[in-house]
Amino acid sequence: MTFIDHPPTSPETQLSRTSVLHGIRNLKWETREVPAPGPREVRVRVRRIGVCGSDVHYYTHGRIGPFVVEAPLVLGHEVMGVVDALGEGVTSLAVGDRVALEPGYPCRRCVYCKGGEYNLCPHMTFMATPPVNGALGEYVVWPDDFAFKLPASISDDAGALLEPLAVGIWAARKGNVGPGESVAVFGAGPIGCTTIQAAKAAGATTIVAVDLEDFRLEVARRVGATHTINARNQDVLAVIHELTRSDLPLTHAGVDVAFETAGSLPTTRMTLAAPRPGGRAVLVGLPPDPEVSLDIVSAASREVTLRGVFRYANCYPAAIGLVASGAVDLDALVTHRFPFDQTPEAFEFVDREKRSSMKVMIDVG
Amino acid sequence: MTFIDHPPTSPETQLSRTSVLHGIRNLKWETREVPAPGPREVRVRVRRIGVCGSDVHYYTHGRIGPFVVEAPLVLGHEVMGVVDALGEGVTSLAVGDRVALEPGYPCRRCVYCKGGEYNLCPHMTFMATPPVNGALGEYVVWPDDFAFKLPASISDDAGALLEPLAVGIWAARKGNVGPGESVAVFGAGPIGCTTIQAAKAAGATTIVAVDLEDFRLEVARRVGATHTINARNQDVLAVIHELTRSDLPLTHAGVDVAFETAGSLPTTRMTLAAPRPGGRAVLVGLPPDPEVSLDIVSAASREVTLRGVFRYANCYPAAIGLVASGAVDLDALVTHRFPFDQTPEAFEFVDREKRSSMKVMIDVG
Amino acid sequence: MTFIDHPPTSPETQLSRTSVLHGIRNLKWETREVPAPGPREVRVRVRRIGVCGSDVHYYTHGRIGPFVVEAPLVLGHEVMGVVDALGEGVTSLAVGDRVALEPGYPCRRCVYCKGGEYNLCPHMTFMATPPVNGALGEYVVWPDDFAFKLPASISDDAGALLEPLAVGIWAARKGNVGPGESVAVFGAGPIGCTTIQAAKAAGATTIVAVDLEDFRLEVARRVGATHTINARNQDVLAVIHELTRSDLPLTHAGVDVAFETAGSLPTTRMTLAAPRPGGRAVLVGLPPDPEVSLDIVSAASREVTLRGVFRYANCYPAAIGLVASGAVDLDALVTHRFPFDQTPEAFEFVDREKRSSMKVMIDVG
Amino acid sequence: MTFIDHPPTSPETQLSRTSVLHGIRNLKWETREVPAPGPREVRVRVRRIGVCGSDVHYYTHGRIGPFVVEAPLVLGHEVMGVVDALGEGVTSLAVGDRVALEPGYPCRRCVYCKGGEYNLCPHMTFMATPPVNGALGEYVVWPDDFAFKLPASISDDAGALLEPLAVGIWAARKGNVGPGESVAVFGAGPIGCTTIQAAKAAGATTIVAVDLEDFRLEVARRVGATHTINARNQDVLAVIHELTRSDLPLTHAGVDVAFETAGSLPTTRMTLAAPRPGGRAVLVGLPPDPEVSLDIVSAASREVTLRGVFRYANCYPAAIGLVASGAVDLDALVTHRFPFDQTPEAFEFVDREKRSSMKVMIDVG
Repeated sequence: MTFIDHPPTSPETQLSRTSVLHGIRNLKWETREVPAPGPREVRVRVRRIGVCGSDVHYYTHGRIGPFVVEAPLVLGHEVMGVVDALGEGVTSLAVGDRVALEPGYPCRRCVYCKGGEYNLCPHMTFMATPPVNGALGEYVVWPDDFAFKLPASISDDAGALLEPLAVGIWAARKGNVGPGESVAVFGAGPIGCTTIQAAKAAGATTIVAVDLEDFRLEVARRVGATHTINARNQDVLAVIHELTRSDLPLTHAGVDVAFETAGSLPTTRMTLAAPRPGGRAVLVGLPPDPEVSLDIVSAASREVTLRGVFRYANCYPAAIGLVASGAVDLDALVTHRFPFDQTPEAFEFVDREKRSSMKVMIDVG
Repeated sequence: MTFIDHPPTSPETQLSRTSVLHGIRNLKWETREVPAPGPREVRVRVRRIGVCGSDVHYYTHGRIGPFVVEAPLVLGHEVMGVVDALGEGVTSLAVGDRVALEPGYPCRRCVYCKGGEYNLCPHMTFMATPPVNGALGEYVVWPDDFAFKLPASISDDAGALLEPLAVGIWAARKGNVGPGESVAVFGAGPIGCTTIQAAKAAGATTIVAVDLEDFRLEVARRVGATHTINARNQDVLAVIHELTRSDLPLTHAGVDVAFETAGSLPTTRMTLAAPRPGGRAVLVGLPPDPEVSLDIVSAASREVTLRGVFRYANCYPAAIGLVASGAVDLDALVTHRFPFDQTPEAFEFVDREKRSSMKVMIDVG
Repeated sequence: MTFIDHPPTSPETQLSRTSVLHGIRNLKWETREVPAPGPREVRVRVRRIGVCGSDVHYYTHGRIGPFVVEAPLVLGHEVMGVVDALGEGVTSLAVGDRVALEPGYPCRRCVYCKGGEYNLCPHMTFMATPPVNGALGEYVVWPDDFAFKLPASISDDAGALLEPLAVGIWAARKGNVGPGESVAVFGAGPIGCTTIQAAKAAGATTIVAVDLEDFRLEVARRVGATHTINARNQDVLAVIHELTRSDLPLTHAGVDVAFETAGSLPTTRMTLAAPRPGGRAVLVGLPPDPEVSLDIVSAASREVTLRGVFRYANCYPAAIGLVASGAVDLDALVTHRFPFDQTPEAFEFVDREKRSSMKVMIDVG
Repeated sequence: MTFIDHPPTSPETQLSRTSVLHGIRNLKWETREVPAPGPREVRVRVRRIGVCGSDVHYYTHGRIGPFVVEAPLVLGHEVMGVVDALGEGVTSLAVGDRVALEPGYPCRRCVYCKGGEYNLCPHMTFMATPPVNGALGEYVVWPDDFAFKLPASISDDAGALLEPLAVGIWAARKGNVGPGESVAVFGAGPIGCTTIQAAKAAGATTIVAVDLEDFRLEVARRVGATHTINARNQDVLAVIHELTRSDLPLTHAGVDVAFETAGSLPTTRMTLAAPRPGGRAVLVGLPPDPEVSLDIVSAASREVTLRGVFRYANCYPAAIGLVASGAVDLDALVTHRFPFDQTPEAFEFVDREKRSSMKVMIDVG
């Protein structure tokens, strides 16, 4: 996908509209050539894009950590659409199939790819991460094995939202959540909520959501939280210890698994403190500064296992199974919707209304 | 717990009624001294006992494999009751607490106990397994850490039925069932149904129940089966392959995990054949003959992992969490109920009405 | 790699000699065009080929189970050589590099490949398995990521024998062998011996080798067996129980892990019987008949986990590390050597001298 | 074990000498009654005690974190001796057996004990941790299942040093070290060296030891380190990256597992930085301050799993197997030896000569 300054004149060439980030808060419309799928690729007519916090962060800051937007960048990596053309050798999909795209594909040859941890592949091509373009246009071409056919029971919105659900599933796997366990999820935004849903699907029966906004906690409760804590007016750890205490000493209270999804230092600290001895802490979000002051000693003495999460691998099939079976309801997360034409307004809205919105969708076509 | 021929005359000694198996189809009522709890033991006034297939097998055959009823034996190991007296040092329970009893306790000192696999302890004391008496009487004394306090949301029946649920949970753990996976459960009796419930609680989204009786398949569907197959009139493996086929060759169709709970040779063979390459097969039931002819070659070539199940360990807390949260409904399994006085009739009934009953409960008090 | 009836006349085309199986015990020499490497492929000048039991089985029977030699087939899949030409995009290897080839490469796109279990890929290209040719010629072209550079400390022979070591490593992984554990290996041929070496490398401290030939048992002892049993004149299970008994009852004696590598029914039966309760049984070999009579009941009641092995995945890096460090000695397995010209004689020799040879190597160049 | 001010006059009562810590650097000799073993306990005539860093820390500081020496305390928890008397019901040991004592025993009833993680039991009785006395006297009474019979091939010193080896084994288990892997061990004191030995026994083939003292690094190399780095004059991470780099980008260099055993902040930071993406970091030691500034973001983004270690569980049988088989050499760690009479001198020596001693043993009898 390359930039074209002047639309080609050839009548055979299809053109498509794409929203391109040219700088901070600067989204421009461009007309690009509709790409042709190569071998084992499909071309997808995009239908729905979810706006992710990382998209908005590029929009408002021009960077996320080491990833800096240095050239115009197409955003959008929560993608659902319809197969529009097949490249050579594609047999698993047909034109007209509704698909969700897993937005990153790996090199397939390195030790990580061969070992099943392709999310750690150093040669990853991941949408909307500089310099790789995302899907916020009318068409995108993608490898067939990272395009997943959707059953009729999964809505267009939910198809796009398999992506944040994949994050939640990966987090639950890293946390090794099992039936009957207790979890705490710090942050009840979209990723917090899909983590709640994934933990519930994995059998968690006590699910504590923690946030600063009642609006988000209400959504969290709708999608599976059994308890909610507004950290503005409650002593979070005290409540968690009370909820999870047993006949063991209070030193041994705590959840089986804690998840950080808010990306703040206080929640990172609580994520380390919340698990019982032998429990697990999973960092889905990351504190804003690389260097943070933590009570690692207490966590390590309690043999809490601390794991980070970097994207996900092999989660789309499970995500589809969970949504199709009704175990997870992704439509419940959609609070607002914008037409493609109002893409810039959608980004401004999300930035402004973080506290009162959950997931904002863009209807591309 | 020893037999007493003549009730003691001391007025302080309480007496209690117990149902004792004296031979095949020969249950007699006996009056026994109410035992006193020792250190770290509780005495429980029994309220509810579930009749298990193994109880009935002792009743009708006088043995199960190597375990032979050579002396009078009290049956019953699915037990719920109320704490009636506390032994020295008991702090985690109080008189009046409703409890479920995990019916086996181990030596606590061998390598299996210390390693967390206490179900394999060679010094296990397991109810209703000769020569250890079960709980089919008014009182039973048991270690406090194998008596689990029940929340109000768990009914008396469900408290007793945590035992077969523990079997299902253990089976699901051995099968390593995860969110979005597909399972097949051969046999839809009480253990088949709790295995279905445990698999569902662990996130399975395709759950195929297989049985010969439509009655059982209907219950299976009520408690979580997404598909049912009556093996009398369907080609079981063909249906399973059809349900689980993907864009891979048909050699790679099959469920992620298959469970045998019927204890027959044909279902054992199907359990080995049903998983996809890399899947798992769990034998909860066992074929009636020790030496059986199996296609182990095909299963091994597909790298199917085959595991047996012997009772369970550390499953009661999860079972309680799942029932209390509503993720598992044990009351749905109860189809018939007998008062304590009709205990012999209950056993005859279960033996006679296997095909038309699911779980039969005895109301002890 | 296609057959050519007449050597091409073009002077630019290099020709190479290849040994081709045309029928049972019928190896013919053919002259084939030297293939050019495609993108991300390397061409390797073959130096050393190990003769595997499966090669000999095709040679003597024309088939292995479902795999039938219907067209001329090049045998040989234990391969070491020197990189001779690089295809486009190869950066990890250079001409002149000594390499071992992992003889199977997968489709890289299916759910098994993406999940790290590429040995189960239904689209595998595996050398010397009809209709895929092996490497018994002067040149072979192969994907760069399945060609592993050898450090100087690994001999040419050992480079070729990384293949059977990979089988042993995969078996030890499937058996989850850990430090201080006890294992029994049934069959002390090349795969039995590499399984012994892999188990030792994983920390096993009691390693019992069982075979019918003292010659093989002597090699087994040299490469790590701590005890050997000749099944002709000893009661195998009695000896294993005696070696592994503890202060637990004799029912709880047995090894932590048993491996079947002989491919016979009696050893398969012993492999199920040898593990302690909670132990593991790994079928590396398979009994000759698909349908076999086994005491699965006893194994399942003891919660023995039974796993099959189909080739291996992600084992070459570990194999190289173990040989380079001296933890595993593959040269100790080589008992005989033939020049390339005597390839047919090598196959006849292995077939005839199974009992008195371990690994036979062919020096291709 | 209670203090006695005046030796009892009864002629039947045996007396024994014990070294008791009464305050910082204040070890006094006391005469105590020889205790009688209770049911399932053995009395052991102590022969060898290893001086551990934690013993010396109590000696020099009077506390370790939350554990404060408030009453006189017997130190010593690396213990080997000979069984001297049996309590009721002991059948697995006999008078005269040489034994190593695992120095902590748990409650056997809590959820941690039943689940196989007894090291996390809140009711642990652990030697030389206030208020529980250690073994630095002539006799100690201990549960029979935490007394391990030593084969003749294990020396008295090595018997006592099974304790620090158990720490190393537990660390290697938490780090999930496997055959062919690379590890870095920060700190090459006794725990660093047993971690090296345990990692080697688990199959690690690249073992990098890091310390500030060449003396320690030489011992590390003798017991298994393949590379050593003196952090005074080398860029530790640069060397580790160079040793572990592959054809992947440098971002993906790093060891499979890093172990912190030095208890300092710089080594804790390096332990987080040293693993490759997807690797593991194990904190065996802990930084001196509870609150430390760490680059958790980088570790989490690389999906490094961080685990703490608190003592160990179920490691003695493996430790015995490894030492008896010769896979681990504990005698190589002993650099100095003091008679029981010079116990205070031994403590002063260890405190003074940390840099030039490895393990100091006390010959009790």
